[in-house]
Amino acid sequence: MDSRQVQRGGGLAAWRQIADALAADIAAGRLVSGARLPAEADLAGQFGVNRHTVRRALAALAADGLVRATQGRGTFVEASPLPYPLSRRTRFSAALARVGREASGALLASETVAASAAVAEALGLAEGAPALRLATLSRADDAPLSLAYTHVPLPRFAGLAAQYGESGSFTRAFAALGVNDYTRASTRIGARMSRPEEATLLELAPGRPLLVVDSVNVDLDGVPIQATRSLFAADRVEFEIRNPGQALPGSASP
Amino acid sequence: MDSRQVQRGGGLAAWRQIADALAADIAAGRLVSGARLPAEADLAGQFGVNRHTVRRALAALAADGLVRATQGRGTFVEASPLPYPLSRRTRFSAALARVGREASGALLASETVAASAAVAEALGLAEGAPALRLATLSRADDAPLSLAYTHVPLPRFAGLAAQYGESGSFTRAFAALGVNDYTRASTRIGARMSRPEEATLLELAPGRPLLVVDSVNVDLDGVPIQATRSLFAADRVEFEIRNPGQALPGSASP
Repeated sequence: MDSRQVQRGGGLAAWRQIADALAADIAAGRLVSGARLPAEADLAGQFGVNRHTVRRALAALAADGLVRATQGRGTFVEASPLPYPLSRRTRFSAALARVGREASGALLASETVAASAAVAEALGLAEGAPALRLATLSRADDAPLSLAYTHVPLPRFAGLAAQYGESGSFTRAFAALGVNDYTRASTRIGARMSRPEEATLLELAPGRPLLVVDSVNVDLDGVPIQATRSLFAADRVEFEIRNPGQALPGSASP
Repeated sequence: MDSRQVQRGGGLAAWRQIADALAADIAAGRLVSGARLPAEADLAGQFGVNRHTVRRALAALAADGLVRATQGRGTFVEASPLPYPLSRRTRFSAALARVGREASGALLASETVAASAAVAEALGLAEGAPALRLATLSRADDAPLSLAYTHVPLPRFAGLAAQYGESGSFTRAFAALGVNDYTRASTRIGARMSRPEEATLLELAPGRPLLVVDSVNVDLDGVPIQATRSLFAADRVEFEIRNPGQALPGSASP
């Protein structure tokens, strides 16, 4: 398309013009949420520039949280933030199913550790007691949503890493170990910028913000079973808290 | 102190050495939470550098969220994040009083607007119906905590801006207009980087993260009275949600 060619000498760098054109395509819905952008070589041809210039434009869009660059699979338009209900019955896979997206989880690492003061308090253990630590990565469809560090008490949940590795779901892994139901006891939410290794795992541009969620789940006897710090890509999620007894939107008149 | 003098020619810029020394003072508690740092001229003398170098070191600490630079009042060590309970009974001043900090609020602006689709839905109004929009800035002790944009229905709350301007508190302003109690119906939480004008008002370095909270309050009849978007300095707050029926920390054994 001729109209896509960049303007030379107009004072706006070629990469900036390309980034602006693609941002306009995203805003107008010509590039839809979740779509893969054309390959770098195709964009270079379209705009009449070299691939280095295209790469710089894509990096600028990623730094603004508009696209997600992956290793080898291309660059994707960021989907609109996932509405994620926080309640006593918070479940990751159910939250995603509710909006027609698929949850998956990968086990990155697991090890036995001595419970720190914070972990011990959350899990009702003695400081230094053995706990299993799991690092996991959750995805909504293909996009990484959160990087989580979970501690569970030992020996009760010695089999959890194997179970999670198989099912990719804490709900199913706990069920396999005899905990068929559990509830959320507490949640703490903060935000900070991502560190480089976190950004890499979450397919974020360096420095994009994270929502940091510390949560404790308990079994139906009220015994803590799980203390987790989750780092959510803030570009991809929005937490929702609804309180009982509320008026439904539109049901009340002023 | 001689030991504070920067090392020349060691490969680490003078401003970086000063930033590292002050960060170590903060980490070790030699500079306590909320304390004012020595004046630029004093720090320049202490480290044997000029004020420009000190200024660059302080800017680096602000960019990392360790200090807060104010206009004219100096630079302060950031306090530890305020624990802020989110519940049906969320009240700003009570949340601060609980941890021994003082709440205050300033009215920045108010105007009558036509309710947007989102505001109309939150407040149970017709789109385009008149609403009062207030821009307010809340502080915890001296530090700006949140910048908030509130919509309330008209004519019911026509006097709200004057009342808020007087008391600096929505709880008191609503009480003065006959709403002695209200509850939180819904809360949505996301995060993004601050824009320059937001960072200035919140005394943040450019690009520090914000927690973005959309909330709706209802009166005891369930009628929406307030829809607010609050931008919290993420360095200064941590939200807490406790669910009923939880086990108290330490009360359960593994």
